[in-house]
Parts: sequence; structure tokens; C-alpha cells
Amino acid sequence: MIKIATAQIDVIPGNIRENWKQIEQEIQAAKEQKARILLLPEMCLTGYLIGDLWDQNAFLRECESYNRKIAAASRGMTILWGSCAVDWSKTNDDGRPRKYNAAFAASDGKFLCPSGTDRPYTIKTLLPDYRCFDDRRYFTSLIQYAAEKGTSPEQEISPFLLPAGKETLCAGVLLCEDSWDENYSLSPMSILAEKQVSLFLNLSASPFTLGKNEKRHRMLGASLSKLHIPMLYVNQRGLQNNGKTCYTFDGMTAAYDEEGTLRAEAQPFHEGLSFFTFDPESRKLESLAPMPPYTGNMLLPALQYGVRKFLSSIHTDKVVIGVSGGIDSAVNAALYRSVLPPENLLLVNTPTRFNSEMTKTLARDLADRLGTPYVTVPIGSFIDETASVLEGLPAGRSTIHLTGFMKENMQARDRSSRILAALSSAFGGIFTCNANKTEMTVGYSTLYGDLAGALAATADLWKYQVYELGRLLNDYFGKEMIPEGIFTVKPSAELSENQDITKGLGDPLIYEYHDYLLKSFVEPWQRLTPEDILSFYAEGTLEEHLGCRVKVKDVFPTASDFIGDLERWWNLFAGFAVAKRIQSPPLIAVSRRPFGYDLRESQVSPYYTDRYRELKKQLCGRS
Amino acid sequence: MIKIATAQIDVIPGNIRENWKQIEQEIQAAKEQKARILLLPEMCLTGYLIGDLWDQNAFLRECESYNRKIAAASRGMTILWGSCAVDWSKTNDDGRPRKYNAAFAASDGKFLCPSGTDRPYTIKTLLPDYRCFDDRRYFTSLIQYAAEKGTSPEQEISPFLLPAGKETLCAGVLLCEDSWDENYSLSPMSILAEKQVSLFLNLSASPFTLGKNEKRHRMLGASLSKLHIPMLYVNQRGLQNNGKTCYTFDGMTAAYDEEGTLRAEAQPFHEGLSFFTFDPESRKLESLAPMPPYTGNMLLPALQYGVRKFLSSIHTDKVVIGVSGGIDSAVNAALYRSVLPPENLLLVNTPTRFNSEMTKTLARDLADRLGTPYVTVPIGSFIDETASVLEGLPAGRSTIHLTGFMKENMQARDRSSRILAALSSAFGGIFTCNANKTEMTVGYSTLYGDLAGALAATADLWKYQVYELGRLLNDYFGKEMIPEGIFTVKPSAELSENQDITKGLGDPLIYEYHDYLLKSFVEPWQRLTPEDILSFYAEGTLEEHLGCRVKVKDVFPTASDFIGDLERWWNLFAGFAVAKRIQSPPLIAVSRRPFGYDLRESQVSPYYTDRYRELKKQLCGRS
Repeated sequence: MIKIATAQIDVIPGNIRENWKQIEQEIQAAKEQKARILLLPEMCLTGYLIGDLWDQNAFLRECESYNRKIAAASRGMTILWGSCAVDWSKTNDDGRPRKYNAAFAASDGKFLCPSGTDRPYTIKTLLPDYRCFDDRRYFTSLIQYAAEKGTSPEQEISPFLLPAGKETLCAGVLLCEDSWDENYSLSPMSILAEKQVSLFLNLSASPFTLGKNEKRHRMLGASLSKLHIPMLYVNQRGLQNNGKTCYTFDGMTAAYDEEGTLRAEAQPFHEGLSFFTFDPESRKLESLAPMPPYTGNMLLPALQYGVRKFLSSIHTDKVVIGVSGGIDSAVNAALYRSVLPPENLLLVNTPTRFNSEMTKTLARDLADRLGTPYVTVPIGSFIDETASVLEGLPAGRSTIHLTGFMKENMQARDRSSRILAALSSAFGGIFTCNANKTEMTVGYSTLYGDLAGALAATADLWKYQVYELGRLLNDYFGKEMIPEGIFTVKPSAELSENQDITKGLGDPLIYEYHDYLLKSFVEPWQRLTPEDILSFYAEGTLEEHLGCRVKVKDVFPTASDFIGDLERWWNLFAGFAVAKRIQSPPLIAVSRRPFGYDLRESQVSPYYTDRYRELKKQLCGRS
Repeated sequence: MIKIATAQIDVIPGNIRENWKQIEQEIQAAKEQKARILLLPEMCLTGYLIGDLWDQNAFLRECESYNRKIAAASRGMTILWGSCAVDWSKTNDDGRPRKYNAAFAASDGKFLCPSGTDRPYTIKTLLPDYRCFDDRRYFTSLIQYAAEKGTSPEQEISPFLLPAGKETLCAGVLLCEDSWDENYSLSPMSILAEKQVSLFLNLSASPFTLGKNEKRHRMLGASLSKLHIPMLYVNQRGLQNNGKTCYTFDGMTAAYDEEGTLRAEAQPFHEGLSFFTFDPESRKLESLAPMPPYTGNMLLPALQYGVRKFLSSIHTDKVVIGVSGGIDSAVNAALYRSVLPPENLLLVNTPTRFNSEMTKTLARDLADRLGTPYVTVPIGSFIDETASVLEGLPAGRSTIHLTGFMKENMQARDRSSRILAALSSAFGGIFTCNANKTEMTVGYSTLYGDLAGALAATADLWKYQVYELGRLLNDYFGKEMIPEGIFTVKPSAELSENQDITKGLGDPLIYEYHDYLLKSFVEPWQRLTPEDILSFYAEGTLEEHLGCRVKVKDVFPTASDFIGDLERWWNLFAGFAVAKRIQSPPLIAVSRRPFGYDLRESQVSPYYTDRYRELKKQLCGRS
């Protein structure tokens, strides 16, 4: 019976020294608890999403030096950890030093080599190069390593024989993607299964998104039950980013039995060690304390964790939030309030004559319920003054004239760039961007206006998910922190008379339909384009493909109406909205395809295929 | 003797139909000139930098359909072109349809297969996955193709036998990186050289950066002279982007003889066909018209082309430029003026009491010389009014107080987000961001202020290059469009009394030193960190490593001074400046490492290695 500990440590990206301090503590704690083996996640010293820091040789040397510190700390036990291995005698294809995403093992102060090799680490075999992942930009895979050496992956993939007191564990060590082998021509798990492995150990740095853990359970369920080998899985905890896109890491250590059934799971974002026993004879893997698999909704915990970590990473805990009385800003205010004391928030309402009494009252009511400071700064007179200064200025052959539409954008910019930015610096913190994904997709927002802010916490949530999050927040608080009126008021930017909610006017988006239409442009693995949409429309299967509840015919009486709407939003999505997203704030990822580094975009013109144009002609009966 | 045409077409990214129209015209023109073979660049239908458009299956089908159109148009001649090949029966490692970056050949309406294969295209072998390149994200390489098939790259890399009237050309067809084989373990050119190839044809989509063509001439000079095979090279023309980073493509078709000497070269950004003759017997490759290799400075032509193309891609030709009387805004104004008529520009000066008479006069003088409309919009009273509204507002336990530093940022935001944004929409165009790379590197700029704008044309130029570009522009105009006073005035943001140029005050950057220090953080292939910098400083070789002319000792009398300055800028570069760059506008790339998609960055904390801390201790004599 071998006692194994896993440490789902909070990895601070790029900060080797601080990560080592945590690791050192966990090693000490694991020793005190008499664990024979300690598992740490993939890239536990450096973090995983650190951009091109891998170009800095000093950073690589530092990483090597701390790998040696971990090995030295393994006196009296065995430690297994993910880190970068550098082979200075070779180069990657880019001419920079050769780097492997590697798993190291050390016991009693000495590095171990995988069975039959003289290389003190195992090399990640499957390097993901899709979504937010760029492994091949930085690391050479075991496949290429074997090819260069003139051997095969089957020869090079080899178990570690890990000392565990008087016993020895023949462990198949995998790095994250190595177990997600569905689409690869090679399965590291199958290769290891043929080499007397009694337990798989997967060290991961797997960013959280909704539904991903469930997918992992299904996938591992299928493959482990075939191989009849149990698995212990440990993931990083923390928040890491690729610039635009911030990912939470849930640290949900998991134990699967040899039938592939999930038997134990750490709570999301949970600190500290988990302990297991493993019997190599019976292959029985059990947690020492009860660890029931998590069944809750991860949306709110992930966003709370993300917001808290983001703020601490930029060393602030003060937040200014512009609140309009609408759902997006209210949900953001309640979200921040759920992780900060009320006095650390400042809610700001910046009305003009276009803002209704109803929403102004709702905004104030929200602040009262949240118990936060609240100020009102009317901006109408400033807009008028700016307009009067600019109107009529000579501009070559023409003179400056500001239309109503231009004044709408002026209001949005005035709110963020003039009022919120100044207030947040004086308040000693940041101001938030309250955008949602529906707006982001079509650029229904103003640059340097409502699209400004240090963090867009809810920008990966479709409008229906913003409402869902609002309900989750009220449940979390156990009372109606977000007043019911905010859930029911008509969504509107209230920037002009055309958006007067008292007359039932508001946003141009029909969220019950457009949420799902726009999602289909962005999130499916094979993303939909107007050609696909129009084909489904023509065959009457669009609702089914989009997963929306409204009937398209009810929204758009004719094919022309439908097509006009489709092209309006496609032109924005593929056009000006890209320009806006280039300058948008970072967001917290929760979906399978967040904007930013996951969906890589170029500013190009919207395109319609020939097949689309034929279909359109057929449907409209004209060219 | 075979007549060959090359078409360095202006590829519009993502617009297959428009690119086909150009290709069709070039085919017609090549036929009229009786060329036997026509070469088109890599990815000539789709463009190369198109982000994740490759996820759209409708786009892939459209691409296949237009590949067939090109093949059908090859009646009476042979056409060779780069495009995407899809094998719907297989998947990439990401589970999406299998895609190859491929070269197709067709003659008399029929696709050709490389000699000895039954595959109607050749597959790119070397897939770059560094800098701005993501080939492995989208495409499967010939190396993987061969491995899956159980053959070898040596077997699969095969020449095309291209019909050319009564003759046949045994051509080694390469796609861009296939010829940049320095750091790869495999050389497609060497493999082809063993297969009776008499001419290399390289189809490229190679983004322009300063010095890159010279590097190509050196590199191909070395490899071709060894193989004794000449090469004809054709590159895309146009402007493509990866969101943040816009690259020009120079379309500089080039002919190298069998000694590897550059014999003929198209002018940069030059439209139209180039014609060559090739004798397979003597291997003599000659241009029909004289095409002397280009020897000019590419900086100005590249930026002019980039600005022109960017504006046309977003369908505007009106530009508002905030001008301060300093060098950055003046150079931007002159740059835009060099591609637009004067009435399409609106120059705007937005002074406060901190702006000197000298710079205000210089700004007006600049507009006079450029002949553009010019308006002055003082902003001081607005700043004061905003301050008086916000000052003293209750904010929980504290009250709002605006410091001088906060008011500096308010000025910057007021200029861009209030004045320039509104004016540009009324003027019917965009406003520019006039940032340079030195500022960008350390975030010496204000978000939603001077860092705002639709395009940052000079943001990849170090401050010394901005001055250089100013001189080039005055040469281009043949007169002093940018007044001499702008070159000599002290650089200053003029946002407070501490930046009063009449008292010799200004920017905190010592450009003669910091330009080079900051460049070393960003541009070397092995990027420098404080550890490297401090080692060089300690051994007295820093100036040499940085390439700067000032003596470090003259700038910083003591090691403490030096280290204080180093850490100040490193903390900004690796810290808050990253947050600013996440929300900065797109730029035009000219350097070997532009910000944005080329240098991928995460928001992490600035880090100092242990070795740095030891060195610091030694130099300062304390911990």
C-alpha cells in the first residue's frame, strides 16, 4: 500500500521563486503526513501560459536551477513534477535552445530516469497547438525527439519506476494532452499500458472551461476501462492569461479506478494536499478522506476565483463600476461585491436625459442592497458643451457636424474615459468593463467607452448566461441583492430617444435568437458561416442546429428579412467588431471558445461564399 | 528556352473571389505575352495571415472550388500556385479536417501530380511556428504526412515535371519556409537537388521586415551555390494582419543564378507581371526586362504602402491627427500626407496652459507646410470642470482627490477619447495613434489617451527611427515639410510644469541609451533580461552588446543609479506596459520583433533571477 499526495498548487505564472516557496511547503507537509510519493502539476515552477518568456535564456537557466532544488528536496520521499527541460546542445526548429515540456522524478535527492533510458525526464508526446495552446511554438515533442534519434515513440515512451518506501511503483507518467489522444495517430496511454504500468499519473496544466471536466471524465472513462489501469490526475490552480484571455485553473485533483470511473475529486479551486493510497497488486486507488465528485455549477465559483486572482495579480482591491440600472452592470457589481467588502467598491451612475427614472432608481437600489458607496455624475451638460465647441469647426472643404449617432458614442466615451477612469485612479483601483459576449461578438459597444476597463469579467458570457449568473449571485447571497426589476427591465443602452425603455424601445438584438445565432459563428469546433446558416434555414432545421427555442419564422416573416438580419450581424462580427476586439480589455474565459487568444482573428472583410450567394438568390427569387 | 511569368499579386486576406479576379487577369495577361509557365505566390487565393478562418469548412470548400477554377484556366499554359489542400478523409491533430499548405500545378486544364506521386499537389515540409507564424496550428506538414504513410520525406518530396510548350521543366517547388532550412534537421532543397531538378521555384507569403530580404539573399546565396541550381522566387503583395500586427508583403519577385547571386528583383510593392527566360540545358535564368536589385531604404515605402492599404481595407481615406508640435505626431502627419491629399487630413492641436508657445507654433507651422486643415481646441477648461465635479465626491470611507499625475492622464484621455474620437467620426474617418516603440515598450502613454486610435503606424519604430523617418519624409517631399524646429525641440509630453520644455524639462527617457536598452529586451532572438544586462555592465561590455554610442558611466555615475534605472523600466516593460499593449491599436510591423502577435505576452509580474540578485548584491555592496 503506497501513500501518495497530490498538491494542486496555486501556480503564479512567470514567478519561479514564489512557486518554489509553495512547493517547498507542500513537500514538507507531505513528508509530515508520511506520503511516499508527491505529485505536482505540469509546469509547476514556471506556469503554463507565459507567452514568449521562453525566449529568455536567463529564465530557462533559473528553471533548471529550481528543478535541481526540487530534486534535492526529495530526501526521504519521491517527487514527481512537471517542468521545462532544456537541452543546450540542441536547438528547436526556430534556432532557440531545445526545450521539452517534461515530467521529472526524483527520489532521495537524485533524479530518476524513465525505465531503460538515460534521460532524467519524460517528454510530453502530444503537443496541443489549437485553441489557446501553443506548445509547438516552444517545445519539441517526444515524437520529433524519437525521429531525430532514429528510434520510435514506442521505444522512447517508458514508465518511471518510483521508489515508495520498500515498494516500487511502475507509473505511466503523462503530461496533460498525452491523455487527450482522441484525434492523434498515437496514444501514449496505450503504449505505456503494454509496459507493466500499474497506475497512470497525469500532471496537467489544463485551463478551466464549462463542461471540460465532464468531457475529461467521459474520455478517460472510455480509455481507462479499456486498458484496466487507474489514474491519478493533478491540475494546476490559479489564474493565467495569454494577454486578452484569462483562464482559471481549477486544481481539481481526480482519481479514476481501473474501470475509468471517477472515484474522488478535489473541490474546485481548493487549496492544499490530497492524499491517496494505492495498492499495486489489486490496483486499488482510494482517497484517504472522502472526496465526493463535484456536481455543482462552476460558473460562479470560476468567475469569483478569476476576479479575485486578477485583482491580486495587479495588486489592487478597489473597483469602480459604472452602473446603469441594467443587467450587465448589476451582475458585475454583485460579482465583485461577492469577493470584496462593500467599501472597496464605488458604484457610479452617469445619467443624461435619455436615462429613465426607472433605471436610475434601479441603479441606486442596487447600490443600497450591495451596501456600497454610490455617486451620481450627470454628463449631459458636458456632452452639450463638447458638441458646441466642435460643431461648425472648419475642416477643409467641410465643417464639423455631429449627428445623433455620434453623440451616442460621445456619451459612452465620456462615461468611461472621462469619469470612470479619473474616479478609479483617485479611488486607487481599476474600473470594470461590463461587456457580455453577445455585444462583443458584433461590436455593439463603443471603443474607449463601454468597451474600456481593466477587466471584462463577464465578456465570455452570452446574454442569457448573464441573467443566469445574476440568479446564481442572488442564490449565493441568499437574498435579492440584484433587484428583480433589473432582471425584467428591457435591455437598452439608453443613449438616445430611440432607446427609450418607457416606450418599449431598447437594444437591436433579439437575445432569444441572436445569442444562439452568434454563438454558432464562434463556438462550434467547425464554426458556422452564412452558407451553413442559410442551408439550415432553407431545410427548416436552423432552430435545431442553433439550439434556440424561438421559431425563426416568428422573428423573421420572410426570407429577405432573415437574410438582411444575418448579413447585418455577420458583417459586424467579421468586420468592425474585430477592430474593436483588438483594443478590448482582457476577459475571464468560461466557454469553449472565448475571444482573444483562443479565437485568433485578423481584420479582414466579411466574406460570403458562392454557395451562399446561390442559396440567397434561390430564397429571395432574385440576384 | 522557356518563358516564365511571375505575378506578385496583391492578395486580399480572406477574399477568395476578389483574389481569383486578379489571378484570372494575370493568367490572361501572361497568355497574351506567350509565357509558358505562370507562378503565383503561396496561399494566393486565401491570403496567409487570416487567423482562425481555417476553422470554417465553408471557407475550405470555397478554396477548393477556386483551386479548380485556376486549374481550368490553365488551358494553353502551365500554372503553379500556392493554396490550401484539404483531405476530408483525414483530420488534423485537432480533430478538424486535414489541411495542407500546398503548391498546385495545372496544365491544359488538368492538375499535375509531383513526379512519382498520385497526389495533385506538393505539401509544405517546413512549417514555421515562431514569430507571427502559426503554420502548425492549421496545417499538417509533409514530414507528418510521410510518417503516417510509413514512408520518408525523402521519398515524398518530389519535383513537378511542368509542360512548357515542347519542353518540360523539372522544377523543385518550394513553399516559403522550405528554403529557410538553417535550423531544421531536414532540407527540402537538398532532397530535391538529388532528383534532377534544374530550377527551384519558391512560392512565398513572406511578411516584410527591415533587413529580411538581405538575409534571404545571403542565405539563398550560400545554399544555391552549393547545389548549383538557380531559383525563381515570387512573394505576395499586400497588407495582412494578425489583429494587432499588420505586415506589408513586398511582392519582390527575385531571380538567383546557380551561384546563388541575386540577378533580378522586382521593385518593392510593384504591381504586375515579371517575365523571365530559362534554359534547362545551361540553367541560365534571365529577366526579359532589366530588373536591377533594389538598393534603397525600405522604411518609408513600407510604411506608405502599409498606411495606404490599411485605410483602403477599412474603406476610409479621411484621417484626423492630433499634433502637439513634437516629432511623433509631426512624422505621422507627414507620413499620412505623403499618401493622401491635404484636404483628407485634419490636424488638431488641443493645448492646455502646459503647452509652450514654441510647440503650438510648430504644430501650426507643420499644418501650413503640409497644406492641411488645422483646428485648435483648447481643453484646459474641460479638465478643470471635470476636476471640480469629481473633487471631493464621497467614496465610502474616503473622498475623491485628484493629484497632478491623475490630471496628466485626464488631459491625455480628454484629447483622444473626447476630442479626436468625436472629430474623426464627424470628419468621416479615423484618428491616429502616434506612439513609438520606445513608449510602447515601457507603457509611457495613457490608455484611451495617446494610446488610442485606429492605427499606430509608427509604433514599431524606436525613437531614433522616428527621427530617421522624419528626415526620409522631408527628402521624399523634396522640402522641409517637417520644420527643423520639430527635430530639435526637447521631447516632452507637456502635461505638467515638470515637463516644461522652456526650462529644458521633458520625457524621463534618455533616448540615446534607453532606445537600445529597451530594444535588447524585445528584439534579439535570445532576448536579454536584467541578469544579462547586469552581467554585461559588470564586465564593462554593455555598450557593445546594446549597440549604443553613449557611455553608460556618463549617464549613470554609480552602479546603484544604473540598477535603479534598469529596474524602473524592466518593471514597467514586464508589468503595466503589457496591460496597456493588450488594449493598444494595431501597428505596422517593420522590425524583426513587433509587439502584438509576434511577441506573445502574458500579464505576469516582472521577475528577477537569483543570479541577477547576486550580481546586484555584489555591485551595490549590500543585499
